[in-house]
Amino acid sequence: MFDIIPVKGGINAPQGFYADGVSAGLKPPLADGTPALDVAFLYSEDALKPFTLFTSNAFQAAPIIHFKQFVQDKESNFVLINTKNANAMTGQKGVQDVCDILSALTQKFPFIQNPIMSSTGVIGQYLPKDKIIASFNAFEIQKRDENAHARAADAIRTTDAFSKEIALRVQLDNGESFCIGAMAKGAGMIQPALATMLCFITTDALVPQNEGDRILRECAKTSFNAISVDGDMSTNDSVFLFANGRSGAYNEAAFTEALKMIMHKLATDMVRDGEGATKLVAFEVCGARDEAQAVCAAKALSNSLLVKTAIYGGDPNWGRIASTIGASGVECNEESLKIAFDSVVVFDKGQICFDEEREAKAAAIMEQESFRITCDLGKGNGRFVAYGCDLGYNYVKINADYRS
Amino acid sequence: MFDIIPVKGGINAPQGFYADGVSAGLKPPLADGTPALDVAFLYSEDALKPFTLFTSNAFQAAPIIHFKQFVQDKESNFVLINTKNANAMTGQKGVQDVCDILSALTQKFPFIQNPIMSSTGVIGQYLPKDKIIASFNAFEIQKRDENAHARAADAIRTTDAFSKEIALRVQLDNGESFCIGAMAKGAGMIQPALATMLCFITTDALVPQNEGDRILRECAKTSFNAISVDGDMSTNDSVFLFANGRSGAYNEAAFTEALKMIMHKLATDMVRDGEGATKLVAFEVCGARDEAQAVCAAKALSNSLLVKTAIYGGDPNWGRIASTIGASGVECNEESLKIAFDSVVVFDKGQICFDEEREAKAAAIMEQESFRITCDLGKGNGRFVAYGCDLGYNYVKINADYRS
Repeated sequence: MFDIIPVKGGINAPQGFYADGVSAGLKPPLADGTPALDVAFLYSEDALKPFTLFTSNAFQAAPIIHFKQFVQDKESNFVLINTKNANAMTGQKGVQDVCDILSALTQKFPFIQNPIMSSTGVIGQYLPKDKIIASFNAFEIQKRDENAHARAADAIRTTDAFSKEIALRVQLDNGESFCIGAMAKGAGMIQPALATMLCFITTDALVPQNEGDRILRECAKTSFNAISVDGDMSTNDSVFLFANGRSGAYNEAAFTEALKMIMHKLATDMVRDGEGATKLVAFEVCGARDEAQAVCAAKALSNSLLVKTAIYGGDPNWGRIASTIGASGVECNEESLKIAFDSVVVFDKGQICFDEEREAKAAAIMEQESFRITCDLGKGNGRFVAYGCDLGYNYVKINADYRS
Repeated sequence: MFDIIPVKGGINAPQGFYADGVSAGLKPPLADGTPALDVAFLYSEDALKPFTLFTSNAFQAAPIIHFKQFVQDKESNFVLINTKNANAMTGQKGVQDVCDILSALTQKFPFIQNPIMSSTGVIGQYLPKDKIIASFNAFEIQKRDENAHARAADAIRTTDAFSKEIALRVQLDNGESFCIGAMAKGAGMIQPALATMLCFITTDALVPQNEGDRILRECAKTSFNAISVDGDMSTNDSVFLFANGRSGAYNEAAFTEALKMIMHKLATDMVRDGEGATKLVAFEVCGARDEAQAVCAAKALSNSLLVKTAIYGGDPNWGRIASTIGASGVECNEESLKIAFDSVVVFDKGQICFDEEREAKAAAIMEQESFRITCDLGKGNGRFVAYGCDLGYNYVKINADYRS
């Protein structure tokens, strides 16, 4: 057995890592005139081969192309992150810009090995190279400031309303322990204008080199992949996990459990975030013929404009839910379908059980900031939970703004 | 060769058909207190086997189940249409309600053979049988009022802002001619709350019994199927085509051409309709590996929240267009992609050509009520045009209203 305890320090909590954020003048100054943080770095005292997950978008951003071409199989001790510009759809020039910036970086800091770049922001503009390079003057890579992790998490935000970071300590039975820290940015399906999801995770656990990718993929399935559908995949989505083994401790079950908690927390934070969203909804589909069908139906619900606007309006309009399930292409029929808002069943195997009392109860449940909609298809054991939010006026406001 | 001429009379233009609309008290009265039209009928002097297209939603509404069970292979001379209630997710009781209503109908009008019912409105409520049956008292089936077609088209509206009807006369080379008339309701992807698309088409052309279904399907591909994606398929979508051959005239090319025009007009009317939409956009994808990939990418564009809100904001944000294409799963790469707003190219085979002048031109194009966004994938000859609209505040307003 093991214990998982929240700790301070965010991405800097594990031994041997140091992240900080600075201002390069990419974002406009804050209301009080102070410069906004918009460039972050993550330094690892050990050069490591990170475990990674990247977008499946056919148009991968230049920093991802650069990583795959030049860094992938090498050990790296540095990630440079900029906001406001995605460096995507920028072709060879975009990749060359990454090379130029990183070469200026290693020239200034000769101890940096095989640096990685990661970008988020508007697609289709060339990077402001000079501003980013000039910001290196503010880097204090060897400093160990206890607020640095918060500045880093702040600096990688785009339209994110709040920073997203977390750190957990895992205490094993044998007295050993390790730590996992993480920071992320992204507002999931809420603000797809800048829907890029970036996540950086550090750990001092002794993760075996041949297990990290598999575990990362497994944890993504119920977290980041549960909040975004293929159709919303940005050109820049990336997850990096750096493990330096400094704690000397590891236990696969405990590590997987803690990583899942971290990624689930960051993923649901992304759904919660954004002026556009007022409610976090878990769309649970169970009783599907298989897991793939459960995923398909749950994501259809979390993406349905009908369902999202009904949630915004607080309307337990279960007909839209049924119609969306029926249109999703999964095996289902009226006679075996069951629909519930939290524990209030409104349709039960062909029977409409939506009297005034249940309607009032369901509407009250929808007033909550967070609730669950369950659809049991009654066809098998497939189950999946997708996380989504409502769609209200502010969604339109944010995304219809000129070049948000 | 042949000529196609617009004519008056809507669905009643072809010989031998008569449609009218009455009030059953299903809709609230109009602002001036007059009862709103909400029940329509279509009477055919000849009993005919209609050509049909139905929704692919797994949950088909009771009237569709009834048609498939009891009418499908028989000749019918009557369609009864009600609004405000879709009679969907209502199980066996829903089908029994259709039987009861239609049996009351044939009892009152013994010349009616194998009547068909068609419904649109809220899902998950039982039909107000008595009100619908009481409305039969107002039916004047043998009357030949020249305004009846407009009342019928009005009566089948739900949230449609305007009626949708059209009639064309096709003049053949040999001096013969035939007529096609139609009425439809639906507001496509604009108001998915009541997204049901119903379309009734009549013709006195001598359509061969073995060709009608194929032609109807072919014409739907570039019209109704170009404005809705599978995910938006309602439980009630139906198209009925009645052909009585009374004109004695027929020519396949001419008939197909005219039917295509009619269905295209009604389909784009659905996109234009609704307070939620201010712009009609043709999303053309060409140069796709094959037609299926063109359909996939074009529909992804017409459904993207990113793209729809950018259009509402008048922002030629081509990065969102590229990202959506890249996420759609079709074969593409930056080096062969070309993106244009009408004739203004903004991205050309890996080159960003989005200077201030072109940006201003593209923004001006987006001010128009209707324009085209073209993406040439440069991979083959697949081509498809999907029709979509913007997503603005009124979309949210309409759909977040309690039980719209």
